[in-house]
Amino acid sequence: MERVAADLAGAVDQDRLWSRLMMLAEFGKIADGGVNRQALSPEEAQARAYLVAEARALGLSAFTDCAGNLFLRLEGIQPDLPAVLVGSHIDSQPNGGRFDGAAGVLSGLEAVATMVAARQCPKRAIEIVAWTNEEASRFAPGMSGSEVFTGGTPIETVRALTDSDGISFGAALDAILAGDNEVPLRAIKRPYHAFIELHIEQGPELERKGIPVGIVTGMQGTRRYRVTVEGEAAHAGTTPRSERKDALMAAARMICAMDKAAVDPAGIKLTVGRLDVSPNAPSVVPERAFFSVDIRHPDNKVIDSLDIEIRAIVEGEAGPCRVNLKQIAHAPSLDFPQDVRSVLQEAAVSLSLPTADLYSAAGHDARQLHYFCPTGMIFIPCRGGISHNPAEWSEADHVAAGARLLTATLWRLANDV
Amino acid sequence: MERVAADLAGAVDQDRLWSRLMMLAEFGKIADGGVNRQALSPEEAQARAYLVAEARALGLSAFTDCAGNLFLRLEGIQPDLPAVLVGSHIDSQPNGGRFDGAAGVLSGLEAVATMVAARQCPKRAIEIVAWTNEEASRFAPGMSGSEVFTGGTPIETVRALTDSDGISFGAALDAILAGDNEVPLRAIKRPYHAFIELHIEQGPELERKGIPVGIVTGMQGTRRYRVTVEGEAAHAGTTPRSERKDALMAAARMICAMDKAAVDPAGIKLTVGRLDVSPNAPSVVPERAFFSVDIRHPDNKVIDSLDIEIRAIVEGEAGPCRVNLKQIAHAPSLDFPQDVRSVLQEAAVSLSLPTADLYSAAGHDARQLHYFCPTGMIFIPCRGGISHNPAEWSEADHVAAGARLLTATLWRLANDV
Repeated sequence: MERVAADLAGAVDQDRLWSRLMMLAEFGKIADGGVNRQALSPEEAQARAYLVAEARALGLSAFTDCAGNLFLRLEGIQPDLPAVLVGSHIDSQPNGGRFDGAAGVLSGLEAVATMVAARQCPKRAIEIVAWTNEEASRFAPGMSGSEVFTGGTPIETVRALTDSDGISFGAALDAILAGDNEVPLRAIKRPYHAFIELHIEQGPELERKGIPVGIVTGMQGTRRYRVTVEGEAAHAGTTPRSERKDALMAAARMICAMDKAAVDPAGIKLTVGRLDVSPNAPSVVPERAFFSVDIRHPDNKVIDSLDIEIRAIVEGEAGPCRVNLKQIAHAPSLDFPQDVRSVLQEAAVSLSLPTADLYSAAGHDARQLHYFCPTGMIFIPCRGGISHNPAEWSEADHVAAGARLLTATLWRLANDV
Repeated sequence: MERVAADLAGAVDQDRLWSRLMMLAEFGKIADGGVNRQALSPEEAQARAYLVAEARALGLSAFTDCAGNLFLRLEGIQPDLPAVLVGSHIDSQPNGGRFDGAAGVLSGLEAVATMVAARQCPKRAIEIVAWTNEEASRFAPGMSGSEVFTGGTPIETVRALTDSDGISFGAALDAILAGDNEVPLRAIKRPYHAFIELHIEQGPELERKGIPVGIVTGMQGTRRYRVTVEGEAAHAGTTPRSERKDALMAAARMICAMDKAAVDPAGIKLTVGRLDVSPNAPSVVPERAFFSVDIRHPDNKVIDSLDIEIRAIVEGEAGPCRVNLKQIAHAPSLDFPQDVRSVLQEAAVSLSLPTADLYSAAGHDARQLHYFCPTGMIFIPCRGGISHNPAEWSEADHVAAGARLLTATLWRLANDV
């Protein structure tokens, strides 16, 4: 098995994989090498049809489900065994790049293509998946496909989401499914033996260390909040300090105090990325300030303790204003199972690929899958850690190295009965 | 002279004044009793034509100048003596009220109307003025008419200002002047004996004290700044604290430090009314933050010392970001001359009008005139100190009390040869 795995990995065709990546980037292509291929858009539908056609040319079967997730199945010797699942997503941010998501789906397809070309049939089926609406840029929250598939969110809830034009997820999805070329609908929550997601790192670690692939140990926990401070509008020239209810001053005190609270331990990431002031006029004391808070750390205890501090800060710094803090997301830290990480590690050793262990700072569909079946992730470097940007870039060598590790890992998992 | 002054003041017709105020508020009327009559707009042109017609019906002559200021002249017994000037402005904020500016122009007209009705002719001519573009809401900076008239700013500079539609002050002004009904153009910088401006207080002092008129001692100094902080956009989940150049965090530190610096002495008013963050997305470390700072205090030493502190704060709190502070306005504190204040005070005593001395927290055309001829101001109460808002309101009794004080003062000044 190990020898076949290594042979298949060696057969990964870097040029074929790269040209498929560049082909996929044509769907929703924007200036400067960027991609605007938002969830359930016509551009994503084109990319979806391309994947189905490529997969069918390799002899795979396409399936979908009620959330629009796309599955491309290479049948196994024992079709009744739970399959091995590999993939990521093909939707992008409105000003996104060519690799985020796409690299994971297409390296999965490349892995299977090497097996088909080598006439090697795995014991378990292998399915490549493209999860619907990972990015949350058109319909928020994101990870809709993996949320629905794993049973975390009912499909009705997701169908009711609307985009900024008022179009519902349900209506957009029905249009996509109607356009599919005879792709049968399957049930959600089908059992899988394992799930592997390859993704660009979206951080600087691998590039800095000069290491082509990372084995992801887990995902850092996140809490996200929206804070609304309500004061009172007043004339900047005539209203004495003692009578002001200045919403921005209160918000600034809160933000500074949160920043101080996030210094210790090192590794906490606290971001106030959005702040809206109303009426936002130089000579008017602000009536209202709205800001986002995003905190992340690999250790749940750290996040939970900072959560308590943040709640105390907004109350303590509100002064004469009223404040409302709403937690809008809470994803605890998680560790991927050691079993899956060991398979990745052993496969890398067998290929003499240098690897580094690192945790994922961003969220991925692998979070949802982790609670559903044994899950692991591979990271490949991306230039300057830049993502969600047309400048997003991974070297062809690194994409291929990731695909080789993926191929060897999938073969091991698919023959591990 | 004093008896005539008191008789004229007693003849002020509260109903006539009030109905003119409500009539003027029809030009540019918006919901909730508000007014949108921006500088050099068709609505202001209608209000201007109304004033010219009302003045001519009283036997006054209308004049204008290269800045579009409107002068309505009651001739005096000695036409060669410098006239007494009274007035304010008739432009409004886009969501403005009925009294700001209009009360000053129409109470001037009412004062002159009582003289005409009583067949009393002053030694000096009296002119009512409506200064162009006081508000700065359409063309910034404001006070354009009084700035040009007093020689503070060349007319060419003002004509080059553009509104948000790209229309120049010059083009808009030419349209207004072309629509005037034979209003002759006069030179700017004509000498005046004195200038008196009546205005709503735009603060809560008079209402709180239950006093119908205030004698303005001077104007508090103002400095205004624009601060731009430049950092670097980065992923909220993956970028370590040590590598962030978070423009909003730097701005928040600056704002908090400025607020602390403005606590002492009491009476400093520091306002950060506007703050714009870019890209303003919850999961992106802010690349850029732009904010306004507005500081005011009646004592120039206090303002100047705070100016030094503010400049030190932006440098000290910038952290890894670059910061640029630009002072965009500096109006020193000023005291109106004791002579003019004494005439106002004596007139009030002769009418048994209770008054309070107070300084002006907001800016007015009287600032520009102060450096040109002896100048004074009368404040009348406004409900809750609210202005620049449809809810702006002054009681008819208070408008009339202000007009009575104005009438007696104008008569005294116009016969003081």
